[in-house]
Amino acid sequence: MERPDGRKNDEMRPVTFQPDIAANAHGSVLVSFGNTQVICAAMLSDGVPRWMLQQNVPGGWLTAEYNMLPYSTLDRKPRDISRGKIDGRSSEIQRLIGRSLRAVVDLKGLGQRTLWIDCDVLRADGGTRTASITGACVAAEMAFMRFIEAGMLKKTPMTQLAAAISAGVWQNTCILDLNYPEDRDAAVDFNYAMTENLELIEVQGSGEEAVFTEEQMMEMLALGKKGTKEICGKQRATLDAFDPSSDTELLDRIKRGRK
Amino acid sequence: MERPDGRKNDEMRPVTFQPDIAANAHGSVLVSFGNTQVICAAMLSDGVPRWMLQQNVPGGWLTAEYNMLPYSTLDRKPRDISRGKIDGRSSEIQRLIGRSLRAVVDLKGLGQRTLWIDCDVLRADGGTRTASITGACVAAEMAFMRFIEAGMLKKTPMTQLAAAISAGVWQNTCILDLNYPEDRDAAVDFNYAMTENLELIEVQGSGEEAVFTEEQMMEMLALGKKGTKEICGKQRATLDAFDPSSDTELLDRIKRGRK
Amino acid sequence: MERPDGRKNDEMRPVTFQPDIAANAHGSVLVSFGNTQVICAAMLSDGVPRWMLQQNVPGGWLTAEYNMLPYSTLDRKPRDISRGKIDGRSSEIQRLIGRSLRAVVDLKGLGQRTLWIDCDVLRADGGTRTASITGACVAAEMAFMRFIEAGMLKKTPMTQLAAAISAGVWQNTCILDLNYPEDRDAAVDFNYAMTENLELIEVQGSGEEAVFTEEQMMEMLALGKKGTKEICGKQRATLDAFDPSSDTELLDRIKRGRK
Amino acid sequence: MERPDGRKNDEMRPVTFQPDIAANAHGSVLVSFGNTQVICAAMLSDGVPRWMLQQNVPGGWLTAEYNMLPYSTLDRKPRDISRGKIDGRSSEIQRLIGRSLRAVVDLKGLGQRTLWIDCDVLRADGGTRTASITGACVAAEMAFMRFIEAGMLKKTPMTQLAAAISAGVWQNTCILDLNYPEDRDAAVDFNYAMTENLELIEVQGSGEEAVFTEEQMMEMLALGKKGTKEICGKQRATLDAFDPSSDTELLDRIKRGRK
Amino acid sequence: MERPDGRKNDEMRPVTFQPDIAANAHGSVLVSFGNTQVICAAMLSDGVPRWMLQQNVPGGWLTAEYNMLPYSTLDRKPRDISRGKIDGRSSEIQRLIGRSLRAVVDLKGLGQRTLWIDCDVLRADGGTRTASITGACVAAEMAFMRFIEAGMLKKTPMTQLAAAISAGVWQNTCILDLNYPEDRDAAVDFNYAMTENLELIEVQGSGEEAVFTEEQMMEMLALGKKGTKEICGKQRATLDAFDPSSDTELLDRIKRGRK
Amino acid sequence: MERPDGRKNDEMRPVTFQPDIAANAHGSVLVSFGNTQVICAAMLSDGVPRWMLQQNVPGGWLTAEYNMLPYSTLDRKPRDISRGKIDGRSSEIQRLIGRSLRAVVDLKGLGQRTLWIDCDVLRADGGTRTASITGACVAAEMAFMRFIEAGMLKKTPMTQLAAAISAGVWQNTCILDLNYPEDRDAAVDFNYAMTENLELIEVQGSGEEAVFTEEQMMEMLALGKKGTKEICGKQRATLDAFDPSSDTELLDRIKRGRK
Repeated sequence: MERPDGRKNDEMRPVTFQPDIAANAHGSVLVSFGNTQVICAAMLSDGVPRWMLQQNVPGGWLTAEYNMLPYSTLDRKPRDISRGKIDGRSSEIQRLIGRSLRAVVDLKGLGQRTLWIDCDVLRADGGTRTASITGACVAAEMAFMRFIEAGMLKKTPMTQLAAAISAGVWQNTCILDLNYPEDRDAAVDFNYAMTENLELIEVQGSGEEAVFTEEQMMEMLALGKKGTKEICGKQRATLDAFDPSSDTELLDRIKRGRK
Repeated sequence: MERPDGRKNDEMRPVTFQPDIAANAHGSVLVSFGNTQVICAAMLSDGVPRWMLQQNVPGGWLTAEYNMLPYSTLDRKPRDISRGKIDGRSSEIQRLIGRSLRAVVDLKGLGQRTLWIDCDVLRADGGTRTASITGACVAAEMAFMRFIEAGMLKKTPMTQLAAAISAGVWQNTCILDLNYPEDRDAAVDFNYAMTENLELIEVQGSGEEAVFTEEQMMEMLALGKKGTKEICGKQRATLDAFDPSSDTELLDRIKRGRK
Repeated sequence: MERPDGRKNDEMRPVTFQPDIAANAHGSVLVSFGNTQVICAAMLSDGVPRWMLQQNVPGGWLTAEYNMLPYSTLDRKPRDISRGKIDGRSSEIQRLIGRSLRAVVDLKGLGQRTLWIDCDVLRADGGTRTASITGACVAAEMAFMRFIEAGMLKKTPMTQLAAAISAGVWQNTCILDLNYPEDRDAAVDFNYAMTENLELIEVQGSGEEAVFTEEQMMEMLALGKKGTKEICGKQRATLDAFDPSSDTELLDRIKRGRK
Repeated sequence: MERPDGRKNDEMRPVTFQPDIAANAHGSVLVSFGNTQVICAAMLSDGVPRWMLQQNVPGGWLTAEYNMLPYSTLDRKPRDISRGKIDGRSSEIQRLIGRSLRAVVDLKGLGQRTLWIDCDVLRADGGTRTASITGACVAAEMAFMRFIEAGMLKKTPMTQLAAAISAGVWQNTCILDLNYPEDRDAAVDFNYAMTENLELIEVQGSGEEAVFTEEQMMEMLALGKKGTKEICGKQRATLDAFDPSSDTELLDRIKRGRK
Repeated sequence: MERPDGRKNDEMRPVTFQPDIAANAHGSVLVSFGNTQVICAAMLSDGVPRWMLQQNVPGGWLTAEYNMLPYSTLDRKPRDISRGKIDGRSSEIQRLIGRSLRAVVDLKGLGQRTLWIDCDVLRADGGTRTASITGACVAAEMAFMRFIEAGMLKKTPMTQLAAAISAGVWQNTCILDLNYPEDRDAAVDFNYAMTENLELIEVQGSGEEAVFTEEQMMEMLALGKKGTKEICGKQRATLDAFDPSSDTELLDRIKRGRK
Repeated sequence: MERPDGRKNDEMRPVTFQPDIAANAHGSVLVSFGNTQVICAAMLSDGVPRWMLQQNVPGGWLTAEYNMLPYSTLDRKPRDISRGKIDGRSSEIQRLIGRSLRAVVDLKGLGQRTLWIDCDVLRADGGTRTASITGACVAAEMAFMRFIEAGMLKKTPMTQLAAAISAGVWQNTCILDLNYPEDRDAAVDFNYAMTENLELIEVQGSGEEAVFTEEQMMEMLALGKKGTKEICGKQRATLDAFDPSSDTELLDRIKRGRK
């Protein structure tokens, strides 16, 4: 069974990270999984949501927003604001991104701050939610590195890196990292969020109006682990090459605090 | 490790179905998983969504709505309408219910009709989404039985029954069918939707700000299968006892079609 | 002139109350007026609306919400949230329920608490607003009885019971307690809310694109009084049979107060 | 018991009508009940609501909108649009205006047209809903007179005039046409819509967190009849003095139809 | 080139001001530019927006709202609230009105108060935004005069009067104060807000899907200056004739302050 | 008077265009005016708005949307969707972008198509609206070039290029192309949209709670012309270097039409 772009069943698309795509954010990357591109930005702001204050929950908070830019799809996708309400799928994805990141960020280590994660899809070709989680983790760690550099954090609140990847059953075969045409035709679609130690954070699998077996589930999980391992290597390499001291203007802003 | 209500790790709460709780619906049950109670109703209406007509998709459609009644929780939960927008969690759950049911309903067999599934939580004590899927399946099949009795359908579009159940890691132990206090404290929370033949439809697992291993995932899946088997037995018994010919007024309405 | 269900002009449909239909509420009933069924729930919460604090109004507040469940009607009724705004008719009815109850509840006697009344129509066959007021009064008094039992209130803030009933001109005849087919065809439609001493709280009468005379108005009022007397008898019997001490878990929650 | 403005119990405030306050409307008046002033406008447009077409209802439709201008009250009232939803009270009043007018307008006689009634309160001093109904009737009849003059209607669809008036129990006395300070302190508040022949269209009475007797209800009704008689005389006089042929530009627009 | 109403190119329509059109406002006028009529009201309320308190900005605030009444146009214009959101054009105009007035009002001189400006178009025939600014300035100054009279302000916070006027290119000619038919056909449309000393506050010019030259821009500006001079003369005359001491009830209310 | 970044009064920031930033759009650029960066995308879709069909307007339509990404500002800017309504300023800017482009695009030459212009601000440092218009024009022309290449358009509907630039009065001096700190402190702020032949399309000038003279207005206009000339040179150079035939997959999509 030949995949449309000639990949092997367990082969990922090229994964890249372009740092500081959004230069006003504390940390940001343009993450690519093949043609899929997502702007991921992380901004820390003072204060926490009101419910934390009311319930006396110590530490900080992390929240994520996900959005498809109207020109990210082949046919233009109307903005949510033109309908006045957020798309159900987007709402689901941004809740997933938030939960996945909170599993690897020590909220107490944030102090009384909120970490805002924003994921805006610039080009959609399958796997936007997995690219978003993957890029958001890198953007968040870049923000933390800058806060450490600026003396505003002692150590990173990120306990380990997190990444996400999809697998699915397509033409009766289990394949890794589905692109849009594969995703559209797949009988089963799984998304995994894992830590760099391959512990599981989130598993979401859905027979798209179909059913699947435990054996298929196991085979897809093995693919997911292989993919995660590769991605986490690239996340680490990107972070190793990142110099948090270079943008002195941004560091000054972080030191001065909000405004 | 003692569970709050004394159940064994692999023991479900009592599952019951009270048919025709909403007597104007084509099919309905009040499903209970212990203290959790959900009104599940199924109504077939003529016509399909506009996108199906525009894209010339044959057959019918199935859509689900999920809602927590304000008095279903221990502290009153404000209605969505008072905020003007649907709760993110509710939106996510109703999408899950719809996908799960569509996996076992032959949409072409519906004709150009829409099956509306409504799940309103009357009392919440953990597992409202699994109870909803489970009850919705019974309500839908009751509606189909009445449409067959009325001569409006030749055979049921339901290919097999579907049920859903939760499992989780609580106090380092894998347990089945979490109630609210267990769910609140669980480190991992899994929901499974399966067919009565134990094929998988949906798997959603989440480390609640925690991580988990493949072994735990397998152990929870085994619990989920055990639970599904028991539930499907009760679904079948309920449907076997259901007489679609008794409510003659409702049958007449179905025969006359939508006004 | 024969009524569709064979009732005499001054004859009510059977009125029943099923207590504790919503077991997490402080008080609740499923009230039936014939085929019309409404879930009525009462929950007391600490605190009052901001305008009372700003204007230094002493005592508590009572507010009501009314909603038709989508499967309560013969054709499925879309939920308000899918349109993003509350239905004009529902808004009008919930204001009526609130005003009617406030006429018999001593708000100062509530303390700085808000009594939330929720009325969700499970099955609609005419008279949902009158059934709602009637059931809400019973649910509220059950909640008060439990708060007294728990030692959180000294005496009931309910000064007397309130009930509501409809009358109308149908086929040139004045009739009591219209069901849906009668209501649809009636030339005039009156709703009364009264106390058990037959004092008037609310009178709303409307010629449905028709007019009516003072004589008809008087005849309908006499019917309304007869109906109210019967209903209040059943309310009292239900409350006399209600044991506020039986649900000890709920009493404990009330004693502990809101978390 | 002295009324604040020295009126007798059964004495109305001065009622006046200033025609063509909104010169682009087909008919309009500024109606005054003492200090209460409402702009009432009537515009006929081609076409009917979709539900009429879908249900094959012949004839036309009449709908009303009611709004308090932000400077109509002593403290500025925020516009509905700033909250994004219509005020519950306004929604209730505009439904009342619509029902009252539909009782005296022969919808079949409108042809396939919609009559839009708009009531914008310019100054609020009690009785804005009764002034609105009263003024709307005059504005509508002026519009009909112009459509007859232009040859677009054969005869008026208005079967008789309608007016509305309030009565209440204030300081234990029944009084007619309450102004704002009286309304604020009244124990009971009644609004009547009647025809010029004193047939009843709508009766809405409410004990403001109080109760009332049948005797009081009868006494208020007598006041309401007295007031309606006076108001209808002024409506007739205003219409008799109105010349539908004077604004030739507007007549031309009516003849040409909608653009 | 003959203008539809026979005016010369540099000739304005008659400009008039009817004071106290909205008698509950602190200041108000019905301003007319020919057939265009706008109700302009000014109300001062205690307090300032939250952002001023948070940022410690001293003094007061001024905000404007603009709205077209549904019967102001030849075809009825649906209210914003029926769509649930404010019209883009209205939003733009009310921001313009606010900026223009803030240029001539010393916000520090207001004290910790907010001046609400409301402009509701009663009849639209071109130039509603310029009439609104012009009338709003008069209404605001009337409110200030009453606050001075009541001893609540020492001197007027208005540093000079502001007025606005339109000019355009119509049939290749520059003309002043376009009415609706001229505005609809104009190739270029300019609006100027100026002080009575002919200093510029706002300039907004737009080729309506066309372009224009610097020479035309200069010619239109000269027309705008001529118009502004005339309008400001009428504003002054209106204010000179205005007696802030006549409405003693309103003065008393201002003295007592907001409840 | 020294500008913060050392520029001369009549000196622009570097203006650059990065083509195909959004590879699924028909044309797109990342436009930079110094630190200000905006993603501008153009997509043509079949069909026109309903009002054009109803009014039988021939040709196509062009509409623009403007949005600030949440991480474009120094402090994170909440998304419009979280408030449920579009920001007034954004609404004003997107109307300006649409008008400016429509002045240079021959709508009849589009055929029955809608050109969607999307401008998402990636980094905001003053001048986002002028950068948006400037980039949108380039993106639109790139889309047209591809449609010509694909044989779907005979010639470009763009009659000439359009660009926009700001000028202002800052520290009593007229300066060109204000960055954010200059814009925040400026007394007067002007935006010009012009054609490459220096004809005017839009002029918007505002004294920010201040006033200005005709002489200042003339001086700023001269600066604006100088800036426009420079920008249009760069637009032309970018378009000259653009090869519409290189992305064959996109050309194929354009040839096949929508889906």
